[in-house]
Amino acid sequence: MKYSERVTAMQASPIRKLVPYALEAKSRGIKVYHLNIGQPDIKTPKGFFDAVKNFDSTVLEYAVSNGIPELISALQDYYATYDMHYEKDELLITNGGSEALLFTMMATCDPGDNLLVPEPFYTNYNGFGQCVNVSVNPITTKAEDGFHLPSKEKICSKINSKTKGILLSNPGNPTGAVYTKDEINMIAEIAIENNLWIIADEVYREFVYDGLDYTSFGNVKEVEDRVVIIDSVSKRYSACGARIGSIASKNKELIAEILKLCQGRLCVATLEQLGSVELYKTPASYFKEVNEEYKHRRDVLYNELMKVDGVVCEKPTGAFYIVAKLPVDNAEDFVIWMLREFNKDGETVMVCPAEGFYATEGLGRDEVRLAYILNESDLHKAATILKEGLEKYVELNKNIQKSTVEA
Amino acid sequence: MKYSERVTAMQASPIRKLVPYALEAKSRGIKVYHLNIGQPDIKTPKGFFDAVKNFDSTVLEYAVSNGIPELISALQDYYATYDMHYEKDELLITNGGSEALLFTMMATCDPGDNLLVPEPFYTNYNGFGQCVNVSVNPITTKAEDGFHLPSKEKICSKINSKTKGILLSNPGNPTGAVYTKDEINMIAEIAIENNLWIIADEVYREFVYDGLDYTSFGNVKEVEDRVVIIDSVSKRYSACGARIGSIASKNKELIAEILKLCQGRLCVATLEQLGSVELYKTPASYFKEVNEEYKHRRDVLYNELMKVDGVVCEKPTGAFYIVAKLPVDNAEDFVIWMLREFNKDGETVMVCPAEGFYATEGLGRDEVRLAYILNESDLHKAATILKEGLEKYVELNKNIQKSTVEA
Repeated sequence: MKYSERVTAMQASPIRKLVPYALEAKSRGIKVYHLNIGQPDIKTPKGFFDAVKNFDSTVLEYAVSNGIPELISALQDYYATYDMHYEKDELLITNGGSEALLFTMMATCDPGDNLLVPEPFYTNYNGFGQCVNVSVNPITTKAEDGFHLPSKEKICSKINSKTKGILLSNPGNPTGAVYTKDEINMIAEIAIENNLWIIADEVYREFVYDGLDYTSFGNVKEVEDRVVIIDSVSKRYSACGARIGSIASKNKELIAEILKLCQGRLCVATLEQLGSVELYKTPASYFKEVNEEYKHRRDVLYNELMKVDGVVCEKPTGAFYIVAKLPVDNAEDFVIWMLREFNKDGETVMVCPAEGFYATEGLGRDEVRLAYILNESDLHKAATILKEGLEKYVELNKNIQKSTVEA
Repeated sequence: MKYSERVTAMQASPIRKLVPYALEAKSRGIKVYHLNIGQPDIKTPKGFFDAVKNFDSTVLEYAVSNGIPELISALQDYYATYDMHYEKDELLITNGGSEALLFTMMATCDPGDNLLVPEPFYTNYNGFGQCVNVSVNPITTKAEDGFHLPSKEKICSKINSKTKGILLSNPGNPTGAVYTKDEINMIAEIAIENNLWIIADEVYREFVYDGLDYTSFGNVKEVEDRVVIIDSVSKRYSACGARIGSIASKNKELIAEILKLCQGRLCVATLEQLGSVELYKTPASYFKEVNEEYKHRRDVLYNELMKVDGVVCEKPTGAFYIVAKLPVDNAEDFVIWMLREFNKDGETVMVCPAEGFYATEGLGRDEVRLAYILNESDLHKAATILKEGLEKYVELNKNIQKSTVEA
């Protein structure tokens, strides 16, 4: 039988494809610290579970396609605290940020169109794009620049007649970069001058450290008719398994178009929506606490990485990821080696090769993404193991190269 | 701003687009019986809610992309009762039957490809198709034939080089038709001879009346490498708001390709999966009871419709819908008239115009879909009101035509 070209062209998830090596290590009794996935260990606010448990209808009916009114209203209140004011018909609830992205791509791009995306990017941007025939048009950013954007000229040089928008995550997954006000304004200018959509994935909005200012595209008045904000409760409230995302745009026509897609899939799970109403009522103090915790974790991991000769990365200021250039030829080989060959007192670490986060062939081969989502004590252990593993791997490879040269 | 052609081409949901008229009627104090949507009033098995309430982790984590092992295993057991035997890597859990359909379309068709679909069809087939640039290639079936399939020659004459499969629902939504063993075998033959996929939407598998035999495509050995079974808990267990669907295929390669799409959207809601494990353990006696209930309802509605001169429809034998040809020029006008102009003692009925269930221009304009999802007493009232409304509308239109002719 023949499968579609679009599905066969899709890469396997770089975040999940090495899982078999981890399972194999575990079967040998090795403890594996997972820094490869963005699954936080922070408790989901209890209000979520209470709301779900208090559901007392006897029939679990379809919800309305755009999202239940209580959740739309809670989302409005949440945005208002950031001086972002959306009317009810400017918001849609989706099956996670994933569906929000997929639907926005479908509504703004036809097959053959492309979106500008700073790389490295959240790897599923590529996946979503491939399955609806939209290509990622990469703007390369670099570890040594802290993954900040290149010049306006460089970005504009990538625009062609099929470019429909700019898609970016801020704070960045996987980079942890937080764009400056100047960068945000530059993107807004480019979008206006070239009539592009701005698809702003801001699911890590609250994860900004060091007292840095954060500018949402939802606060840039000049582009409000072309901005789409993608959001999710997954990371914000450590509720990844709820699959509740959202789309916000002051462009009511766009929302009306996407609503047709929402009607096609009928609705989002009723109970998860009820639970999420309570999540969006979580007091701001929650974020402050969580924020402090992640900042510590970042420092632990970053400081340990910096002790290894040849590691290149700027200290990230947002989200909970670090992309680091390692002194290795092929990061995937290193990740597999850590799982198959290395352990320290029966423990090892799994990180994620970064090549799959790039669209430009060959980039990211010597980089990894690390998620600092473990508690401080575990993370400290994991970071130490990673450092020792990396040092040993570099040493081993030096010897191999030496003996090859000598042979 | 410009929206994609694919999204602007999508029709608004014919099932949901007339809702404003119903709301307006309600605001005038009119009670509206809804026969326009397939939202059953049957209780969701309590096990679902118990499982959700018993969840006791403090973090709501991502689930695995293919579906939690407990649910995969419960689904295997369920299929085994129909002599359908799937291995774990032949099943995927999805966000409702909707996502199952969308992903299957994406994995089997590229933009520009088409799927043969008997019309009238579940209207979202068209919607899903449009948003991924796959077109519905309609095989017309007729009310007077009970919506059974035309000859093999007629079906084959529609096949072209871009035809990748046959998509059909059995029992049929909106037709209520249950295909005979001969029809199933004919489709299987056509699929083999033309190397087509068979995408079998069997979400109404248990809703078959009058002791009729039901043949699942999952039981036709000759085509097992080309059959994809779409399923859902929505109608089966009256759990529409759970959004738990599934894909089953003995073609492991296809499942592996679709798994990439599942990985892209990360996972399906954890709690709803846990609840659905219990649904799939519901004893067969539940279906027997529910089945009896729906059979009664069908009879109530069908018998009342048959009392109106000029109504054409065969008694349906499955699902919980009737498509009837009415003695009117434009069924949508009639539906709106019922909501705006007609009431009997302050009550009226909403049904769904069937035109949106056809891909062939002009077909279905005089037809409606009725869902018999109310309890017997309400349904009886609704059917009586509908009959009286229809008779009055026909009478009124006769007079208008008469006076136009005389003028």
